[in-house]
Amino acid sequence: MGNNVVITIGREFGSGGREIGKKVADRLGIKFYDKELLQEAAKESGFCREIFENQDEKPTNSFLYSLVMDTYSINGYSSAPFLDMPLNHKVFLAQFETIKKIAEKESCVIVGRCADYALAENPNCINVFIHADKEFRTKRVAAELQVNESKAKDAIQKKDKQRASYYNYYTSKKWGDSRSYHLTLDSSALGIDKCVEMILQYRALYLMK
Amino acid sequence: MGNNVVITIGREFGSGGREIGKKVADRLGIKFYDKELLQEAAKESGFCREIFENQDEKPTNSFLYSLVMDTYSINGYSSAPFLDMPLNHKVFLAQFETIKKIAEKESCVIVGRCADYALAENPNCINVFIHADKEFRTKRVAAELQVNESKAKDAIQKKDKQRASYYNYYTSKKWGDSRSYHLTLDSSALGIDKCVEMILQYRALYLMK
Repeated sequence: MGNNVVITIGREFGSGGREIGKKVADRLGIKFYDKELLQEAAKESGFCREIFENQDEKPTNSFLYSLVMDTYSINGYSSAPFLDMPLNHKVFLAQFETIKKIAEKESCVIVGRCADYALAENPNCINVFIHADKEFRTKRVAAELQVNESKAKDAIQKKDKQRASYYNYYTSKKWGDSRSYHLTLDSSALGIDKCVEMILQYRALYLMK
Repeated sequence: MGNNVVITIGREFGSGGREIGKKVADRLGIKFYDKELLQEAAKESGFCREIFENQDEKPTNSFLYSLVMDTYSINGYSSAPFLDMPLNHKVFLAQFETIKKIAEKESCVIVGRCADYALAENPNCINVFIHADKEFRTKRVAAELQVNESKAKDAIQKKDKQRASYYNYYTSKKWGDSRSYHLTLDSSALGIDKCVEMILQYRALYLMK
């Protein structure tokens, strides 16, 4: 496994967790995985990219959709051992394996995707969660999606519910509970760039041992 | 209110949160409040110290005890406005007021006592939560209380239940949830002294704004 350090970042929607992760990766000169990770998983497992993107961090909620997708995957997009599992599970397992392979290969930052759980057995992991108050997130989401604050609030509620549901379904831990992570930070209290500093400081202290 | 910075620390039993808080206070040359806070509260409210120590961070669970204690307090240990409230509430309100007064007066570290909630309106507060895995805590508690690991585990479960119950009862937040704090740390992953460094680093970044 070598001395790779993998930083995983869970985050509330609009908290800036993705931006923080990207900046940490840039500062350290290491790779950053988000959608890119999904694409790599898609390549390795033989799924087409489109299915992955639709399934990204959505909990299992449609039996019919799974059936259709299973039929679809039987027609040449899936591999045999996955045939009797709902599609979400296949996507999850493929991501899970990809995350593990990446962590063996290199230091990196991975955002979302239950990466902390996929790497539970990896001792060189720093699991971070970023959250922020509603006002901070509403403003960020409204600006990013170019919608009004009411629509931004709806998006936040929906996205967080999806993420919590995905995390709680696939892991044995609880999304957002401090005890699921090594370090959690409120980006609305400290600001994006100082959260980056805190994560770098944690990593430096961690490597000192 | 001036430029006092108050660091509040919530903690799982055996996580070393108290030790971390004491070290942070020592490094900064500021006061540390734990039992001492209770004594000050006792002095200010006219309660006797013994009652405070028995009631410390226990949720309301015995109506009979409250009745007996109310009678006791009527006999000269309480002040009139508190007479029709259960004793726990009186203790809580007295601590609450004391915490607010201290925060106006000086920079300090306060461990437990829902201090983060008492100071919710204070903008110069850093709310920290320290947790650790079961193994780390069991060893610490067994050594500290000089009991075997099985008894240490029982003590941890009981104490954490009490603390969660006290916090969730008196505040509008959830004990241990990352979103109740600005910074949370796993002391079993990082170690006591590096948690101290992380809190000092947070404070330094916070003061930079």
